[in-house]
Amino acid sequence: MSLVLPTHALKRTTCRLRLDTKGEHPASKRVHWSCLPEIGRMDVAEFRRRGKEMVDYIADYLENIEQRPVYPDVEPGYLRNLIPSEAPVEPEDYNDIIKDVERVIMPGITHWHSPHFYAYFAAASSYPAMLADMLCGAIGCIGFSWAASPACTELETVMLDWLGKMLKLPECFIAGTSGRGGGVIQGTASEATLIALLAARCKVINRMRASNPQLSESEIFSKLVSYTSIYSHSSVERAALIGGVTMKKVSTDKNFAVRGETLKKMIEEDKAAGLIPFFVCATLGTTPSCAFDRITELGPICNEENIWMHIDAAYAGSAFICPEFRPLLNGIEFADSFNFNPHKWLLINFDCSAMWVKNRADLIGAFNVDPLYLKHENQESGLVTDYRHWQIPLGRRFRSLKMWFVFRTYGIQGLQTYIRKHVSLAKEFEKMVLADENFEICAEVIMGLVCFRLKGSNEINQKLLDRITKLREIHLVPCQLEERFILRFAICARTTELRHIQRAWSHIKKLAYEILQESSHCLKG
Amino acid sequence: MSLVLPTHALKRTTCRLRLDTKGEHPASKRVHWSCLPEIGRMDVAEFRRRGKEMVDYIADYLENIEQRPVYPDVEPGYLRNLIPSEAPVEPEDYNDIIKDVERVIMPGITHWHSPHFYAYFAAASSYPAMLADMLCGAIGCIGFSWAASPACTELETVMLDWLGKMLKLPECFIAGTSGRGGGVIQGTASEATLIALLAARCKVINRMRASNPQLSESEIFSKLVSYTSIYSHSSVERAALIGGVTMKKVSTDKNFAVRGETLKKMIEEDKAAGLIPFFVCATLGTTPSCAFDRITELGPICNEENIWMHIDAAYAGSAFICPEFRPLLNGIEFADSFNFNPHKWLLINFDCSAMWVKNRADLIGAFNVDPLYLKHENQESGLVTDYRHWQIPLGRRFRSLKMWFVFRTYGIQGLQTYIRKHVSLAKEFEKMVLADENFEICAEVIMGLVCFRLKGSNEINQKLLDRITKLREIHLVPCQLEERFILRFAICARTTELRHIQRAWSHIKKLAYEILQESSHCLKG
Repeated sequence: MSLVLPTHALKRTTCRLRLDTKGEHPASKRVHWSCLPEIGRMDVAEFRRRGKEMVDYIADYLENIEQRPVYPDVEPGYLRNLIPSEAPVEPEDYNDIIKDVERVIMPGITHWHSPHFYAYFAAASSYPAMLADMLCGAIGCIGFSWAASPACTELETVMLDWLGKMLKLPECFIAGTSGRGGGVIQGTASEATLIALLAARCKVINRMRASNPQLSESEIFSKLVSYTSIYSHSSVERAALIGGVTMKKVSTDKNFAVRGETLKKMIEEDKAAGLIPFFVCATLGTTPSCAFDRITELGPICNEENIWMHIDAAYAGSAFICPEFRPLLNGIEFADSFNFNPHKWLLINFDCSAMWVKNRADLIGAFNVDPLYLKHENQESGLVTDYRHWQIPLGRRFRSLKMWFVFRTYGIQGLQTYIRKHVSLAKEFEKMVLADENFEICAEVIMGLVCFRLKGSNEINQKLLDRITKLREIHLVPCQLEERFILRFAICARTTELRHIQRAWSHIKKLAYEILQESSHCLKG
Repeated sequence: MSLVLPTHALKRTTCRLRLDTKGEHPASKRVHWSCLPEIGRMDVAEFRRRGKEMVDYIADYLENIEQRPVYPDVEPGYLRNLIPSEAPVEPEDYNDIIKDVERVIMPGITHWHSPHFYAYFAAASSYPAMLADMLCGAIGCIGFSWAASPACTELETVMLDWLGKMLKLPECFIAGTSGRGGGVIQGTASEATLIALLAARCKVINRMRASNPQLSESEIFSKLVSYTSIYSHSSVERAALIGGVTMKKVSTDKNFAVRGETLKKMIEEDKAAGLIPFFVCATLGTTPSCAFDRITELGPICNEENIWMHIDAAYAGSAFICPEFRPLLNGIEFADSFNFNPHKWLLINFDCSAMWVKNRADLIGAFNVDPLYLKHENQESGLVTDYRHWQIPLGRRFRSLKMWFVFRTYGIQGLQTYIRKHVSLAKEFEKMVLADENFEICAEVIMGLVCFRLKGSNEINQKLLDRITKLREIHLVPCQLEERFILRFAICARTTELRHIQRAWSHIKKLAYEILQESSHCLKG
């Protein structure tokens, strides 16, 4: 009954199979499948060889990334024509696959880790994080509960404690062995904001129903209002859309920061209109200009009004490990939840978004659905965290390994040095901009982002950006501040040095002068 | 101004810094940070060395995984005592970190890729997927929009087309160059279900408001009803909780499958009560028993009633690449969205959950929030997909590389062989169970899951599972079907062979006989 078929025989069987679409596979009556040769299998010996080749490919790629154009020169749809329209029926040679990385993939890559990349915000990348991620892939546990891999859950709790202490978070956010708060790794800041909003929604509905039993859930639902800055990340508005609640945009002061007075006034008006304010998302380091909402003013208002305050410090949060930046986090004691992305600026490769809550029961209460196949013997012990109740997905990778490897390889000092280097490069760039009277700085440079523009129209700045994008020597994206079109220059790559930003500035200046000259010709003409 | 400081000097500077918590870093006035040596940096040469060591560690781990107890022998809180309570201030030696993997991590791992692991459902793992994931980490692009890395978006679209064709999905789910549908990689099936429910919610609200302008959004909201099987995954109920809509549980036939008649009756009652049925989540391959809801019956009802039908085939979906299993997907033509997890059973490491929609405008319309810093020149071209509108998070990894490497390394034939091997092993196990009259099979064995139990009380089966868990030779989890406590035996690891399931069965039988003997002694006593 158990016979080993040669590969060609199997091929024939499989071909025949395609005609038979009912019932059991016909060959299974004759051949024991567990004895069939695996087709196209890469065995452990080949993995050792190919894995080491891949390590060298990665090292070569990152070592020489400067030589590649940072932004790709491809048109939409370029890739489809380069590869077949269907998966191969038979296995292909690995050499052909790896050759295609340069032929098919690399021409379409925006190189986020090139020192010529100044767009969006940084995406973290470091060698120890990559090593840890390799290990994460090999262990391949799905850590939805403590029992599904205790190390995966426990290292995460302790790493979030380490990081929380690095940030000098108030004790109530630290899990320890008996804390009511604690941290969790989310995939992105978007998910953290959504989770916070949903927990807040659940909490306010429970509270309102307890105090006003005559109110139905949907009546409460329809009166809920949340608030965030006009400069908040788009994901905040999206969280409200998903949660099905109203979100109002709060205007800012001249530094693009939300102030207590403005919020207070809106809350009072809404309460007077019978609405129920329940959630505020404050931002530390907004995406357009890295502005800081005044959480020392917003916090007391939220606490007084029983409003959940979530703080989104996606980019800027990493800097709070430096004592000189930590004061910007003052007011955190008023928050119910806090989030930032070590995968942006703390050398831990995406994804790793760190979130803390003061009271983890608030999260768990909002989503707890507990079928038998996910229960385990230690569930009720109090020491156990089942992170699936803290997040949108059920499954989760062993991401805390990256934190552990990076924190230990760099040490707190190494990480602080890294943050300071980026900030100092941004300050250098700011100086260059300020030294040229054709340009202006559009927002205070506090961290690694410089917002600048040519003095003049939005059109001329749009034109400047278009040329920069087209030439692909450096890559930037714009933002809008008070109707003004502005260029964002964000220090991003781990390997960005002074020489790179000097070169970037010469390039920008050259293109700007060309445009200025053209438009003066235009004016003259 | 630009001087290079030796490491010890930097250490001093940083120490002084800790006392100063206001304003700018004092040293930044004297020292150019871009010239400071990076502390604790792992350079590219060391990465080459450590990366290759890691490849060997991974190969050794997976080659010898059978020798490790599959389930860990640790108590909750074990890990915290094994490592310091704070991150190190100074960098540590990499050798110490890697040594700690065996000391701290491995004792707390549930080894999902051990051939002794039969719990939950499979988590995929293969060498080509791990290689692709290494590359994904190195490229490290955040593919939220086409411009953020065209290759990341375009390969994903084409890979979902490849996979859709492997499953013989109806043409309307294939993106091609002009299709209205298409596929996307979600992190987990939970997210796919949530996205589908939210898109359906948005669509029904828009439709109702168009036809009944007098209805307010919150009035509609409060009348919405969704449906799913009593045996659906817990994440389906959770999606409704998050979306703030009612979800009703539909009972099943004796095969644990939802039938059209039952659903139709519920819908009619709800409509008569003034409610608005809008969403059905059908399951192909339920988590408790791998049952298949009858989508050929449910589909026409949903289409007729203008109800969004989502199909969750998280585990079973992979099997549809085999012609003999494809008939189970008949009825897919009625669905609005379909999802399964290649990261379960298609050799692609977590996370990779494949989702298709018939009309991508339904997803995009539900979440589109479009700030200037995310706009790009090609956005409106029609050929371009910005996947951030298709999902909950903004950021996303380059996960389609894993699909590309795995599909090409194995070929469709290799993948089919793999699926068939798992199914055949499950059938072998079923035979062993059936051959022992003390045991019974509790649900039809269609794929890689066998639900079985000792004939007798729930208590005796709970006792059997407790012993299995305690001895840690194999690992299973239970489920509940019609109040009966049942053991789930799922073929999980890539390396599970006939000898492993034979050994597992002997082990289970031995423990069962001990329990039976004890209880007969009890009875006699």
